[in-house]
Amino acid sequence: MNLNIALLPGDGVGPEVLAQAVKCLQAVEETFNHHFVYKEAPVGAIAIQKKGNPLPDNTLKLCKEADAVLFGAIGDPKYDNDPNAKVRPEQGLLKLRKELGLFANIRPVLAHPALFDRSPLKKEIISGTDFVIYRELTGGIYFGEKKLNEEGTVASDLCEYSEEEISRIAHLAFKAAKSRKKKLTLVDKANVLESSRLWRKVVAKIGESYPEVTLDFLFVDNAAMQIILNPSQFDVILTENMFGDIISDEGSVIGGSIGLLASASVGEENALFEPIHGSFPQGAGKDIANPIASILSAAMLLEHFNLSEEAVAIKKAVDKALKKGIVTPDLKAKSQYGTNQVGDFIAHNI
Amino acid sequence: MNLNIALLPGDGVGPEVLAQAVKCLQAVEETFNHHFVYKEAPVGAIAIQKKGNPLPDNTLKLCKEADAVLFGAIGDPKYDNDPNAKVRPEQGLLKLRKELGLFANIRPVLAHPALFDRSPLKKEIISGTDFVIYRELTGGIYFGEKKLNEEGTVASDLCEYSEEEISRIAHLAFKAAKSRKKKLTLVDKANVLESSRLWRKVVAKIGESYPEVTLDFLFVDNAAMQIILNPSQFDVILTENMFGDIISDEGSVIGGSIGLLASASVGEENALFEPIHGSFPQGAGKDIANPIASILSAAMLLEHFNLSEEAVAIKKAVDKALKKGIVTPDLKAKSQYGTNQVGDFIAHNI
Ligand SMILES: CC(C)[C@H](C(=O)O)[C@@H](O)C(=O)O
Ligand SMILES: CC(C)[C@H](C(=O)O)[C@@H](O)C(=O)O
Repeated sequence: MNLNIALLPGDGVGPEVLAQAVKCLQAVEETFNHHFVYKEAPVGAIAIQKKGNPLPDNTLKLCKEADAVLFGAIGDPKYDNDPNAKVRPEQGLLKLRKELGLFANIRPVLAHPALFDRSPLKKEIISGTDFVIYRELTGGIYFGEKKLNEEGTVASDLCEYSEEEISRIAHLAFKAAKSRKKKLTLVDKANVLESSRLWRKVVAKIGESYPEVTLDFLFVDNAAMQIILNPSQFDVILTENMFGDIISDEGSVIGGSIGLLASASVGEENALFEPIHGSFPQGAGKDIANPIASILSAAMLLEHFNLSEEAVAIKKAVDKALKKGIVTPDLKAKSQYGTNQVGDFIAHNI
Repeated sequence: MNLNIALLPGDGVGPEVLAQAVKCLQAVEETFNHHFVYKEAPVGAIAIQKKGNPLPDNTLKLCKEADAVLFGAIGDPKYDNDPNAKVRPEQGLLKLRKELGLFANIRPVLAHPALFDRSPLKKEIISGTDFVIYRELTGGIYFGEKKLNEEGTVASDLCEYSEEEISRIAHLAFKAAKSRKKKLTLVDKANVLESSRLWRKVVAKIGESYPEVTLDFLFVDNAAMQIILNPSQFDVILTENMFGDIISDEGSVIGGSIGLLASASVGEENALFEPIHGSFPQGAGKDIANPIASILSAAMLLEHFNLSEEAVAIKKAVDKALKKGIVTPDLKAKSQYGTNQVGDFIAHNI
């Protein structure tokens, strides 16, 4: 298969981990006889520095023309505590999601037996955890109208959803549930929010065309408890943008390391793959960042193009690294393996 | 001291647990020579049933006239899955909060050594946990304008905050931090939301008048991880309404039982005390609900009126029940003690 892949390394540890994912894709090319072309462009704080824009036009163009985008990470603490900053690295990512129409963010949450010890949760709680979160990514309070009055004393954000926005991701989530454990949980706050009541109505309606899938509803506050109390009860979780941001990060602690979690963001025409960890600026340039999340994002990319065997080859190589303890220090306190070595090991085992 | 206490038992297990809290207050009256007058009124689903209104006028009047409100729980599943229900039990609670001006919801989160075994988290993670969440309770997306277009295809909720709303609760939270471990963490989403940026600006400004308190900022997605990864890092968490709803319920899993967690909701002129667990309809009338959260809410009520010795007497009696295993089945699988017996034991030990 021929694929054009846009590489957006971004900030902090982004470039380092992305480089390992590319190594693995190159190993896949060789082993399975594919041809991937990689083109790189800046995004985030580094793009602000270079071009004054967190998503330069050329970067956006490259992404639109590519078959898929492989993303590193963005963010720089110097923007976070400055409420007056006019340009922020995050705007680059948000604009990219919107412009590429990436309405569904898909985050698998798995507890890997080799890492049970590292989880803050007890083994009996997490064992058997295997769910996936479908988070709406281009709507809701992230993209609704923002206001600040002239005096700077009243601020607001609008959370708006249309039937159309809800139904397109709901169909994806139902399809996923159908091919998995056949359970879909809608997380909302329908006892308080009008937008949540629309979600509940639309999703219940769509559920009628997926009779093999059991649909249930959970208030977001209760979901925040259930994810920790009994994570193995879940199969597919569907939710809106803001709730999805919170509960998917919460879910990321189950597996014992956020350094393992990959995500796919998909739309009608484009798809982007990224680790869910952030830019981890304190770790940048130190060869200590865990490359596995980025490598598993590359596996999700392959799955997206139905290259399942190839994706499995990556996942097996990752398993081997975990079992043999060829991992970065975040997973094994005294490990001498760096980002690069772990990437090399996994790539060589594909 | 003379106190007029409004009793709002509400729905589900509310009446049963509230009755135990009243027993304890009566024991306090006797032991410490106070005089409390109790007046009861309906709220929630039961009030809809009786009066067609989740917060009947008389109930509101009673609460306004009382020195404090002791609240049970509200909610009935039959309203949750009906997106067209015009009246909901929750509206009663929300209106009560608004009408009484209860802008600050205060939720202590503690890990009790007697219950380490029951927590889904590992002992080394939770030991030393002792923080308190200050959640804004009468603003934000809960009370902003709600819209649904005529076709019922687009719905929205507005999240709005004013400097005034932020600063009054911020002062309470800083004062609490000052008398505790001197650390305040503002949880927000300032990298995305305009309202969060206002929170950050206002809170940073107010922080200057509390130089002994260390202020830091955490994005809500990161907070959802940190609360599980390292709960003992927190002292006082300050946040807006919706984020507070989610992270305080998340925090409630740390201690091993939501049946232990009390909360206070305070304003300029009124105060309400309630367990954070809900109405638990499946448990209603079975004498199995854990009364401790409701009893500890009564202790918070006493603290609110500076009756510290009295509050401590209740807390010590609760500790004794926990240590001796005089607890409901949610805390000890084969316990034969019911709601009433646990309430009696605690009341007798005051
Ligand atoms: C960086 C930030 C804007 C982003 C989000 O909130 O969506 C991140 O937390 C994520 O989840 O991808
Ligand atoms: C019942 C519901 C409206 C309420 C809320 O969301 O505030 C509850 O979850 C709470 O936290 O007190």
